[in-house]
Amino acid sequence: MAAEKITPRAQDYSQWYLDIVYRAGLADNSDVRGCMVIKPNGYAIWEKMQRALDRLFKDTGHVNAYFPLFIPKSFFQKEEQMAEGFAKECAVITHYRLRSRDGKIEVDPEAKLEEELIVRPTSETIIWNTFKTWVQSYRDLPLLINQWANVVRWEMRTRLFLRTAEFLWQEGHTAHATQKEAEEETRQMVEIYRRFAEEWMAMPVLVGPKSEGQKFPGAVYTLCIEAMMQDKKALQAGTSHFLGQNFAKAFDVTFQNEKGQREFAWATSWGVSTRLIGGLIMTHSDDQGLIVPPRLAPTHVVICPLGKNDQERSATIAASEKLAEQLRSLPREEFFGYEPLTVKIDRDFDKSPGFRFNEYELRGVPVRVEIGPKDLAGSTCVLGRRDVPGKEGKQVGVPLAEAANRIVELLKAIQKNLFDRARAYRDAAIQEVNDYDEFKKKIEDGGFFLAHWDGTRETEERLQEETKATIRCIPFDRKKEPGKCLVTGKPSEGRVVLARAY
Amino acid sequence: MAAEKITPRAQDYSQWYLDIVYRAGLADNSDVRGCMVIKPNGYAIWEKMQRALDRLFKDTGHVNAYFPLFIPKSFFQKEEQMAEGFAKECAVITHYRLRSRDGKIEVDPEAKLEEELIVRPTSETIIWNTFKTWVQSYRDLPLLINQWANVVRWEMRTRLFLRTAEFLWQEGHTAHATQKEAEEETRQMVEIYRRFAEEWMAMPVLVGPKSEGQKFPGAVYTLCIEAMMQDKKALQAGTSHFLGQNFAKAFDVTFQNEKGQREFAWATSWGVSTRLIGGLIMTHSDDQGLIVPPRLAPTHVVICPLGKNDQERSATIAASEKLAEQLRSLPREEFFGYEPLTVKIDRDFDKSPGFRFNEYELRGVPVRVEIGPKDLAGSTCVLGRRDVPGKEGKQVGVPLAEAANRIVELLKAIQKNLFDRARAYRDAAIQEVNDYDEFKKKIEDGGFFLAHWDGTRETEERLQEETKATIRCIPFDRKKEPGKCLVTGKPSEGRVVLARAY
Repeated sequence: MAAEKITPRAQDYSQWYLDIVYRAGLADNSDVRGCMVIKPNGYAIWEKMQRALDRLFKDTGHVNAYFPLFIPKSFFQKEEQMAEGFAKECAVITHYRLRSRDGKIEVDPEAKLEEELIVRPTSETIIWNTFKTWVQSYRDLPLLINQWANVVRWEMRTRLFLRTAEFLWQEGHTAHATQKEAEEETRQMVEIYRRFAEEWMAMPVLVGPKSEGQKFPGAVYTLCIEAMMQDKKALQAGTSHFLGQNFAKAFDVTFQNEKGQREFAWATSWGVSTRLIGGLIMTHSDDQGLIVPPRLAPTHVVICPLGKNDQERSATIAASEKLAEQLRSLPREEFFGYEPLTVKIDRDFDKSPGFRFNEYELRGVPVRVEIGPKDLAGSTCVLGRRDVPGKEGKQVGVPLAEAANRIVELLKAIQKNLFDRARAYRDAAIQEVNDYDEFKKKIEDGGFFLAHWDGTRETEERLQEETKATIRCIPFDRKKEPGKCLVTGKPSEGRVVLARAY
Repeated sequence: MAAEKITPRAQDYSQWYLDIVYRAGLADNSDVRGCMVIKPNGYAIWEKMQRALDRLFKDTGHVNAYFPLFIPKSFFQKEEQMAEGFAKECAVITHYRLRSRDGKIEVDPEAKLEEELIVRPTSETIIWNTFKTWVQSYRDLPLLINQWANVVRWEMRTRLFLRTAEFLWQEGHTAHATQKEAEEETRQMVEIYRRFAEEWMAMPVLVGPKSEGQKFPGAVYTLCIEAMMQDKKALQAGTSHFLGQNFAKAFDVTFQNEKGQREFAWATSWGVSTRLIGGLIMTHSDDQGLIVPPRLAPTHVVICPLGKNDQERSATIAASEKLAEQLRSLPREEFFGYEPLTVKIDRDFDKSPGFRFNEYELRGVPVRVEIGPKDLAGSTCVLGRRDVPGKEGKQVGVPLAEAANRIVELLKAIQKNLFDRARAYRDAAIQEVNDYDEFKKKIEDGGFFLAHWDGTRETEERLQEETKATIRCIPFDRKKEPGKCLVTGKPSEGRVVLARAY
């Protein structure tokens, strides 16, 4: 058993993270440089995330579509910042055929592409090149498009879920007739990300614009949600960009307005990715393993019938099956995404109860039900909650007749507890700082620092060089409080959030 | 109006198909060679297909996962038939960086990959290379994995949905301890495809093995579902492959059996793709436009309030909203994938009723409700069905109080009618043929031909060269009837299905 324990957080946070990713069946490294294999337990979390986000997008009028994986090299040249930001580290397709030579397969030099193709790192260029043919009149606007897709960025240092060469994401791309409408969309989408992060992932976030130095290449400005991990480092969890008319001008997307004049369209784009799974792990999990908020859990409940012999076991199995059926046929609720509860019955009597319980704790199942012969004699069961493992969280003597409803209540309580706990943890690690030397010491222990900044790129770069911290976000709800820049002492309009980040 | 009509099928079937794809908002060509843009109305059909298939897969114990987009070139070399079949026409990544030179972006020659990567044309190799680390003991089996993904095959002649360089699909990959179990899986999955094709797409299919000449590279045998399009050509709509131990041997995937001996695992793979959308169009649609079976329709019902002035319109709009709300809040049914009905209210009074009705016929909405002032005076509405357009299919004077239930009945009736109609059409175009010269004439008009075949590759190749027909399928339910080969006169065990195919 000892050999199977995961590394404690206090001992090595990075190794703890990797242990959870591997041992909870979330992802593996692959033999393809920088690319991961998302394993069934990890992919099931992503599917739950997709369902919830997709519904939030559709409820606000968006529709899904799909655009080509490949982008002609010349498209990048049309938007200068885009080329700067993305075209550098990317997968380049130069040929379209292999051939056999002396029993070996090699690239056929005669099958060279006239123009190289880039595997999309993001799709603004190919999508705005398409919008050109979709938009003629103001009646064609707005276009409210989302795409679920894989993208590739040739990262040199990778980390499962958090930074990989290939990852999965959604990218929203919208076109509008007015600046005002596009800016409202940008704001609406970051608010949807906030809701998803807080209400589904139980992960509290700060919301606001990025600084100039941290914004998306090609954006006028970028709004973000920013979360704090348990090691008190920041994780950028979602971004929503107001792109102005940059892409409309680069790809000549104009429309005739109501007065018959031609105008360039206004753009937004917004995205979240499988990186969120990394954020989920590092927000909630503990030294026993993965913790998943119930609204995103692939399996909500595991029922473990117990018993020493076949007779005892057949009775507790029967009771388990009855409870499972009750749980599965509860009315579908918005809270669980209108899907039935997923319930697993564990019949692995070859292993000890302790071993079986540990396995489901490791994999993050929110509620465990134990039904042993003694429980059954009293028509009761035992409920264990993943967020409070051990005796403290156990409910003993729960009448089987009430168990289904009590479990639903418990799942909702766990969701709330995870959010409250994460918020309390984060809030305790946010502090104001006014002295640069003090900051340099304190940043070593992590945390979010509210500090004055003079608003210049130079100071931002200096800060990063000297402390490895970046400006994570300029929160919408910050106090309007003039002060002096932490680094330069120059005037500042208000405090921004500084932290080291993933 | 005349200019907007689509080309009639009788005039030019290929152009009719393209007209529907473009005009019903299903897909566009892109500026990237061979790649399509799947537009919102087309992608919404794909999403419905995904939901239904995903549930069928999960109900039979499968789970989703995700594997890398890129496959190292050497992986193809490990399975000989795979290299033959797929490595030839593919997208090859040779570099991982671009650079700026004199204001132009070019491939950086210093960023050449040591080993080229291929964009996956199918994922057997990368997945079996991963299974190697997942399988140790018979307890780890079966692995029942599915992946939703994009794949790329460098097709020279492309056709929207039916054959494109990039397409979307699902690929199932399973590993088993015994040959028997793997063969049962192969059969189970082709049966799931049959159910999906017939019960969801309302598209009748023949089911059975492919001939040796038509099987998947690397398979021991391939089972398929084969549909007939309205031009009486065949469409391969889904395949399920029994792969034997070929991939286990190529990637050294062994397990310890119950007796402690090491054995190679047994494999299957199976897939359907966005090609199904092409099949859907060519099975049901007519000269007015797209027809979508209700179970896969992005919009189930469009309600068109009518009226000459604001007063009339506000009354019919109110009645429309009430009916829409009733429809949306009906109990969720398995028939509609446990999702609420999607209802659109059309308020575009600037256009004539005829124009509005035509637009929804073109886009394939199954049921149209008309509510005019006269209908409203009698508390009734008019129901139109897309599968029987015009007066013949109209129900006049339907009480508004009953409308919601009548519409649900009508949607189910349309689903059934589409299947019955397509099956009758197909069955009428299946005939036995015993004379090769007669066959050569008849095949020009299309259709499925039941003919004797001597079972050899030579005859199959000759048949294809001389008639452009192929052996589509050896139906499971064919009569055991000995006879003489249509081409060579040699002995045959039973009839196979010959047709020209997409």
